[in-house]
Amino acid sequence: MTKPRTVAVLVGSLRKESFTRKAAKAVVELAPAGLTLEFVEIGDLPLYNEDLEADPPAAWVAFRDKVRAADAVLFASPEYNRSVPGLLKNAIDVGSRPYGSSVYDGKPGAVMTVSPGVIGGFGANHHLRQSLVFLNVPVLQQPECYLGGASKLFDANGKLTDESARGFLSKFIAAFAAWIERVAAD
Amino acid sequence: MTKPRTVAVLVGSLRKESFTRKAAKAVVELAPAGLTLEFVEIGDLPLYNEDLEADPPAAWVAFRDKVRAADAVLFASPEYNRSVPGLLKNAIDVGSRPYGSSVYDGKPGAVMTVSPGVIGGFGANHHLRQSLVFLNVPVLQQPECYLGGASKLFDANGKLTDESARGFLSKFIAAFAAWIERVAAD
Amino acid sequence: MTKPRTVAVLVGSLRKESFTRKAAKAVVELAPAGLTLEFVEIGDLPLYNEDLEADPPAAWVAFRDKVRAADAVLFASPEYNRSVPGLLKNAIDVGSRPYGSSVYDGKPGAVMTVSPGVIGGFGANHHLRQSLVFLNVPVLQQPECYLGGASKLFDANGKLTDESARGFLSKFIAAFAAWIERVAAD
Amino acid sequence: MTKPRTVAVLVGSLRKESFTRKAAKAVVELAPAGLTLEFVEIGDLPLYNEDLEADPPAAWVAFRDKVRAADAVLFASPEYNRSVPGLLKNAIDVGSRPYGSSVYDGKPGAVMTVSPGVIGGFGANHHLRQSLVFLNVPVLQQPECYLGGASKLFDANGKLTDESARGFLSKFIAAFAAWIERVAAD
Repeated sequence: MTKPRTVAVLVGSLRKESFTRKAAKAVVELAPAGLTLEFVEIGDLPLYNEDLEADPPAAWVAFRDKVRAADAVLFASPEYNRSVPGLLKNAIDVGSRPYGSSVYDGKPGAVMTVSPGVIGGFGANHHLRQSLVFLNVPVLQQPECYLGGASKLFDANGKLTDESARGFLSKFIAAFAAWIERVAAD
Repeated sequence: MTKPRTVAVLVGSLRKESFTRKAAKAVVELAPAGLTLEFVEIGDLPLYNEDLEADPPAAWVAFRDKVRAADAVLFASPEYNRSVPGLLKNAIDVGSRPYGSSVYDGKPGAVMTVSPGVIGGFGANHHLRQSLVFLNVPVLQQPECYLGGASKLFDANGKLTDESARGFLSKFIAAFAAWIERVAAD
Repeated sequence: MTKPRTVAVLVGSLRKESFTRKAAKAVVELAPAGLTLEFVEIGDLPLYNEDLEADPPAAWVAFRDKVRAADAVLFASPEYNRSVPGLLKNAIDVGSRPYGSSVYDGKPGAVMTVSPGVIGGFGANHHLRQSLVFLNVPVLQQPECYLGGASKLFDANGKLTDESARGFLSKFIAAFAAWIERVAAD
Repeated sequence: MTKPRTVAVLVGSLRKESFTRKAAKAVVELAPAGLTLEFVEIGDLPLYNEDLEADPPAAWVAFRDKVRAADAVLFASPEYNRSVPGLLKNAIDVGSRPYGSSVYDGKPGAVMTVSPGVIGGFGANHHLRQSLVFLNVPVLQQPECYLGGASKLFDANGKLTDESARGFLSKFIAAFAAWIERVAAD
């Protein structure tokens, strides 16, 4: 990286043994020098309700501040019912408001989806991308990251041990770093 | 209707003056004889977390029971960021689990989306439909319901006064009633 | 089947050794008694142009007549560039016009997608489904059919030899037969 | 522009009085200095068939050469059946093959959709974007261009006379020019 960059990582699962979180942790470790990834937690965000904007919940404010402070955003998600989990979509909604103050606006983004089945969260991946058009997030196109068969990729400590997956995720996060360099506003 | 049917109505907005809720209320009134629509509230459902299934939150249990008791489901939604609000997606996720116990399975469904802008929530509408494939909900195809320009359709009391919109929603709910008759399992 | 039914099969690939066509042929053989599937060819349909409707190409007219004569439609497709091949979408477009004369209107439908990769054409599958909403085709929801790994499923003669795939496709076409019974207008 | 750039314009309608083509013509005129837009015709491209790659049709070769020579691509499309017209998808498919030789790879892209109805081709717009992920085309996110009500925007000579639409399209093409500058490889 020509200058250090930070990436906010949003994880779309609250399960303790979440494959998505484990995969995102692997990505954090595989990131190239100069790129720092930090998890921003979304499990305590009250469901979005515009009426609360007059006096927004503290969890909303803290979340917005953290994402705003990052240079880029990585969305790591399982697929629930062929789409984005409500949990993650709620975080996107909270960060996008109030109108004109979206914390995502203009920040480079990337999407990774993870599933135990073979399809790798394709439905969630592209539904996320549709939201990112509206949010004016320039998104990494290639390589697409659909991490399937996730139940077989980690050891008992949650470490990604599958060599092929490690290689792919290294390539993925390197491509995201290059994308951030390419499109970052500053 | 050849026999009375009940429809659970899920509304994807918590805003007090929600256009979507007002439009759904109009649909409740316009429903043909024999079709009873009941709102099932989703604003207090904790965000889905599979780890909680061992001792599920009371709000999840109550929600699941209410949807399970209905013959059909109407999804009424605004569009947030070109997709389904996290609020509504969370309700879908909660109702769909645990695996093998989805409360939606096989129930006829319909989708109506509402927006102040002209597009009428197209993105949310079709993202919902993608989830409903997985959930095995046979969905009403025509007429599609994209209710745009919603800020001009209601009076100060929240009543739908626009004649064209009333006519369309009458047709929509009549088509849903016919669809329920056509595909209901019993 | 309580009465015999015919299904028009549209295949979204022209390649001689198309995996999709081979898979569709297997489905033809696995269909339950009373359900007859017939391929309707789409490779010679001129690209849709409304200006030609005054004197429509013979290939359009013949295609429309064949689909109109069927009781139901099966869309079998590979995925090109994460969506429906232009070939198949053109056939859908040709059959859908002129306005008010769509040959698909009201006919039960099913979608199967096939790919050499593991994802099984998820993108094409759901893009097709979005069109079928507009076309008022009630579509089979479950089981979804994403046939991945297709390069390993057939023998040198193009026969589907993979037992697991044969079992799944038997279940799929049986479910489609039941769906046709359930929603057919007559 | 810091250096002159060319944009290949693909139009997804063959109709002589196509609103999409008229709108695209307006965009050509509204483009900022240094950005040259050229229509590349797609109406005579044979439907994609991989078996023809051994001796590809002359129309395919000519089309591929023209797109390859451009710095960027503008996809201008109506919506057919809630998705991309087969005509335009076929052009995308033809340009994307053979594997490893896609003419779109890495070129900045933008999407504009046009419809007589109010929705402005939302379905076609986002289906196109899903293909562009796979094709590694970095796509302009904002402003999204859904040009609805198209039947009222042009005069008898096909000139875009609606001032609001002219203003929007000026802004759109200026944003695309800036996007090309931002992400172009050279």
